Amino acid sequence: MDGKPATDRLDASRPKVHPLGPLTAHEITQSADLIRGCWPHDIDCHFKVITLLEPAKVELAPYLVAERAGRDPGNIDRRAFVVYYFRGTHNLHEAVVNLTTSKVESNARLGPFMHANGDGEEIIAVEKALLAHPDVQAEIAKLKLPKGSVVVADPWIYGSDGIKDGSFYDDKRAMQCFLYMRDPRNPSELDSCHYAFPLPISPVVDPNTLELIRIDILPTGLDEKVKPLTPWQTAPPSEYIPEAQTLRTDLKPLRVVQPEGASFTVENFSELGRLIRWQKWDFKVGFNQREGMVLYDVHYDNKPLFYRLSLSDMAIPYADPRHPFHRKAAFDLGDAGAGIMANNLQLGCDCLGSIYYIGGILADSYGKPVNMPNVICVHEQDAGILWKHTNYRTNRAVVVRNRELVLQTILTVSNYEYILSFIFNTAGDLTYEARATGILSTQPLDLDLTMTPHPFGTVVHPGVLGGFHQHFFSLRIDPMVAGHGNTVVYDEAVAIPRDPELNPHGVGYTVRRTEVQSSGGYDLDPSTNRSFKVINPAVRNAVNGAAVGYKVMVPPMQAILADADSFHHKRAEFADHSIYVTRYAEGELYAGGLYTNQSRGGTGVRSWAERKDSLAEGDPVVWVQFGINHIPRVEDFPVMPVETLRVMLRPVNFFDRNPALDVPPSEQETNCSVNLNGANGSVEARLERMTLGGEDGQMRYSCASHGGV
Amino acid sequence: MDGKPATDRLDASRPKVHPLGPLTAHEITQSADLIRGCWPHDIDCHFKVITLLEPAKVELAPYLVAERAGRDPGNIDRRAFVVYYFRGTHNLHEAVVNLTTSKVESNARLGPFMHANGDGEEIIAVEKALLAHPDVQAEIAKLKLPKGSVVVADPWIYGSDGIKDGSFYDDKRAMQCFLYMRDPRNPSELDSCHYAFPLPISPVVDPNTLELIRIDILPTGLDEKVKPLTPWQTAPPSEYIPEAQTLRTDLKPLRVVQPEGASFTVENFSELGRLIRWQKWDFKVGFNQREGMVLYDVHYDNKPLFYRLSLSDMAIPYADPRHPFHRKAAFDLGDAGAGIMANNLQLGCDCLGSIYYIGGILADSYGKPVNMPNVICVHEQDAGILWKHTNYRTNRAVVVRNRELVLQTILTVSNYEYILSFIFNTAGDLTYEARATGILSTQPLDLDLTMTPHPFGTVVHPGVLGGFHQHFFSLRIDPMVAGHGNTVVYDEAVAIPRDPELNPHGVGYTVRRTEVQSSGGYDLDPSTNRSFKVINPAVRNAVNGAAVGYKVMVPPMQAILADADSFHHKRAEFADHSIYVTRYAEGELYAGGLYTNQSRGGTGVRSWAERKDSLAEGDPVVWVQFGINHIPRVEDFPVMPVETLRVMLRPVNFFDRNPALDVPPSEQETNCSVNLNGANGSVEARLERMTLGGEDGQMRYSCASHGGV
Repeated sequence: MDGKPATDRLDASRPKVHPLGPLTAHEITQSADLIRGCWPHDIDCHFKVITLLEPAKVELAPYLVAERAGRDPGNIDRRAFVVYYFRGTHNLHEAVVNLTTSKVESNARLGPFMHANGDGEEIIAVEKALLAHPDVQAEIAKLKLPKGSVVVADPWIYGSDGIKDGSFYDDKRAMQCFLYMRDPRNPSELDSCHYAFPLPISPVVDPNTLELIRIDILPTGLDEKVKPLTPWQTAPPSEYIPEAQTLRTDLKPLRVVQPEGASFTVENFSELGRLIRWQKWDFKVGFNQREGMVLYDVHYDNKPLFYRLSLSDMAIPYADPRHPFHRKAAFDLGDAGAGIMANNLQLGCDCLGSIYYIGGILADSYGKPVNMPNVICVHEQDAGILWKHTNYRTNRAVVVRNRELVLQTILTVSNYEYILSFIFNTAGDLTYEARATGILSTQPLDLDLTMTPHPFGTVVHPGVLGGFHQHFFSLRIDPMVAGHGNTVVYDEAVAIPRDPELNPHGVGYTVRRTEVQSSGGYDLDPSTNRSFKVINPAVRNAVNGAAVGYKVMVPPMQAILADADSFHHKRAEFADHSIYVTRYAEGELYAGGLYTNQSRGGTGVRSWAERKDSLAEGDPVVWVQFGINHIPRVEDFPVMPVETLRVMLRPVNFFDRNPALDVPPSEQETNCSVNLNGANGSVEARLERMTLGGEDGQMRYSCASHGGV
Repeated sequence: MDGKPATDRLDASRPKVHPLGPLTAHEITQSADLIRGCWPHDIDCHFKVITLLEPAKVELAPYLVAERAGRDPGNIDRRAFVVYYFRGTHNLHEAVVNLTTSKVESNARLGPFMHANGDGEEIIAVEKALLAHPDVQAEIAKLKLPKGSVVVADPWIYGSDGIKDGSFYDDKRAMQCFLYMRDPRNPSELDSCHYAFPLPISPVVDPNTLELIRIDILPTGLDEKVKPLTPWQTAPPSEYIPEAQTLRTDLKPLRVVQPEGASFTVENFSELGRLIRWQKWDFKVGFNQREGMVLYDVHYDNKPLFYRLSLSDMAIPYADPRHPFHRKAAFDLGDAGAGIMANNLQLGCDCLGSIYYIGGILADSYGKPVNMPNVICVHEQDAGILWKHTNYRTNRAVVVRNRELVLQTILTVSNYEYILSFIFNTAGDLTYEARATGILSTQPLDLDLTMTPHPFGTVVHPGVLGGFHQHFFSLRIDPMVAGHGNTVVYDEAVAIPRDPELNPHGVGYTVRRTEVQSSGGYDLDPSTNRSFKVINPAVRNAVNGAAVGYKVMVPPMQAILADADSFHHKRAEFADHSIYVTRYAEGELYAGGLYTNQSRGGTGVRSWAERKDSLAEGDPVVWVQFGINHIPRVEDFPVMPVETLRVMLRPVNFFDRNPALDVPPSEQETNCSVNLNGANGSVEARLERMTLGGEDGQMRYSCASHGGV
């Protein structure tokens, strides 16, 4: 966020009120004022969340149907969901504000083991406070750091272990802070990669009061033993900023040009809500503090597909069992927020081509609106060939390219980045993509162990350990495939037993369908080609009479390794199964529960699934878990190339033919590609032309070129 | 192939002789002449394969090292591998021709159950012969097809079942031909999709003699019963050609422009062999009849990585156990050839941007060189963000985009298409991508069963069944990671048992490594995050001392469902494990064996692996199997959107840091992206501008635009 107060820029377009419109600057201010009005003047509220409280499905679903049909949908009261502390205390409240009636409808103090997310102001205050603390300075002094060294601190979510640690029991909110320093030879470089210089000191701070709770000394060997602090030994830097590199000079520019503009349109469905139409798709885009980008009311060719789609949470438990690393487990949405941590995307850097940027407005800790420009970029891309056939009798080929529409958002959570996208194509496929990049949260290692294999991590740099950790993403799918009233099934391919009549040669197999009848956790099984689908039993395919459906294609993952009694496992309520199915219930939006920070479990999707609700009523919610077990490579430092994961939602017997049959074929007249071979195809001529630097490209950009060698 | 005789176009560049250079037109002619010279003049040879016989590794490996070092590599005799019939007979020979000494070094008749691949001339001759046959015409007459109907035949590889069928035992080569017709309302349309009109008659033809062996009548119900032929009932067409569609009009052009040209260079290492250099990568590209595109001597930053890479074969067994479908199992490389079936790629259709085309020269059945233009296209593409980090303290973001180099080839095997690519990036990753598209090989179904679920397929159109089938690809990796002398290992992440000292909270896990010590078949295991790697124990990572390696990232597949005693299983010698590791042996290039057509098994990778060779000598070959169980969707007809699979080879502790650290950051000055929001960001202004048709795009193409809303 850039901290600038929100402008009313967008009010130029007459603001519409819509039940799904993100809170406006005015509504944020209104919410904060109404909450403050509940308390004496000397109470200063530290606001953690001021966000849209979406209407109940029973109200909203008919509203959206009426709206689409052009009927008057009526009015639904606007409400805000507010979480706040009395500033400087652990006194936490949750409130609901009715913005239509300007009334606080509920305002309750929250019980033990419930803590709000961290925020940007907080981690900067915590860093400042601890570095100024004499006890911390005294410990740092023992390291005898080079003169002029600059120490920095990454405050981390404390996590949970249920034990009394020193005088501190983790029912209180705390932050475990990891110390690093900039390259001591270049300490004035504000963007020096301090993760190359982890220090063995880890202060624990109360982020509400900014008090120092205790100082942990980190184990830096192969086991849990902690050694007394000794003077820092010289180690080399590892910088990622370009001025520290000798950059390649032979990567020629590649540009995406849309001379007739983009194929999508964007409308305001509310002051901040955006309605996007592209290639028969239409959907509403929202943006909030916790989930960031949210899609609503997704249709293809006016056929309902998804009521609501969002990333519901992430869990990143670490492998290192040693104190204090045993508590290291982040929930980047619940503990921080994909919205509030969203990058301000820059033109020509984060996307390529013709880009529309969606901005958002969120609240700061004082309840003031904060402008979040460019949090979502929208653009088209080419993804190679979508379908092709060549008739070998006539040699006629028909080729259609795969054009995609991408909605991308990027969040930075301290050291780490996530690039999250919804990708639509012209064949009715909707893909959710997650790219993990950024910098490993490193820990110090004795220099003399650099060449020794480590049980809990990879040595990625001299004296630097990149700890093993798992990443779990949970995509929440609230479906309305061909309308509400859906059923979740999985199909498996099974061999047919040998039979003299039916299968005399032992080659036969068929497909067996299983209906998911009650809420629970379910697993993938590549050995049976198990394939989960959301179907609508009431709507039949016009061609073959099958129940129309959408397939959920999920990459396999290793389930959480922490044992079932561990807090990692109890808290990551979604990390043990690739698929969870629950019966829709109001307020059940986040797989790890509403309050993940130092949570104890029992409040997320696993607990809801354990209700064993019948799904006969046909209102299932599908929670898709995917992730990686990140065993770092040296190549992941100082910044890691993306690890990419994709979940695809694909029509299965939903349409009556290939839905991309009507996409115009790929043709040179439109694509204006450039033939680098040249007329006589001689290598010499070509190399010459290449080294002449794309004169060729210019020359042929007129589409004058012809195919073939 | 376009059938034109090969020109000597490329001879303009002084031809170099290289042991890996694909056979030249001259060498093909020379080989055919030398073989013909072995026989009396009245023997007419039907050539099936005339291709380069690559030198033994013991000769070639030192040659390549010397060549790279700039030393004189010496000379290696050029040899051709030739397979041919005495035309019109089943008399099959295999020969080796030494092109340097102009001598036939071996020339042997092959034994029973060994049959050569099909070829294009053959399937056209078979179709012509059977349609002219009175017995076939008599059967067709029983269908009482509409006047003017045009029947077409897709000759299929016969397959194997080991039984005597009528008077025919499958030790003889045969083709099972499936009949279809063009849309009877539009029979003059040569590109009418005949797969929408499958007929229940299936003649079996001897492709060597063109004799009709028998006529099978196909089961068209739910079981194996075959009904007498009855008059054809009217059914609707389903065309894929654009003139049969109402095409979308709202997809705006998207162009890839490289104003300074491409970043890669192409040199001839031989008359037809191409050496490509791009972003520290260099490798040689070959092209042959069977595998099509082959990569040799792949290096990154002059570090050896892979000695040879190619798709070694495919197997596509079908699920339908009913006669004659029970034999339906294609080996598209061994039975046909990825080279000889390669598409002539057209500029602006099959790739986007600045494209270099590689052509090939193969042999026809008369041993004449055939020009194969544009069989491989080479181009760069943008693949989104490769790495990013934003320093939340300074708000400075560094973003590097993922530029890729793509080598793409596309083959058409009768009804079906495969789009096969090697994709290189700037982080040392090498991806093999397979996209399956084209048209299902359909079979007839009683019209009144259209709405009835079918045990062996999906009804994709009235009266049209798309049978279930599995696709298995086998990628052959002959590694030289950091040099020869490699070891295959797999790493697994395993939980550490609870322990009061080491793991008191139950969260710990570590990594366990297993070395593959002898040849065999191995499986993936997502539950342990099993990760296969090729390492070089003799070369240690400079940072952490680990053996340098490359990870082989493989998508999970369902193993072949046909039982172990079935011919499908025996023949598809690679379809039962995701990973096979064998000890390198000369001539073991094709996972399904050298002669897959009507094979009986026992000649492929499973058999080689069963030798249980020790891998201690450090010369492993890794066979990576991946694929899909294709349960057709209505959406897959009349032509299917791509099913995409990717295998990634990724460095693990091979480099001393992120190898893409030196890639220039993504910047607007270079990318010239276009901001669609416009200055005031008002929706109205933007929509107006969009409908003005990209004036915006032109206006800003000068890089005048600035980021942000």
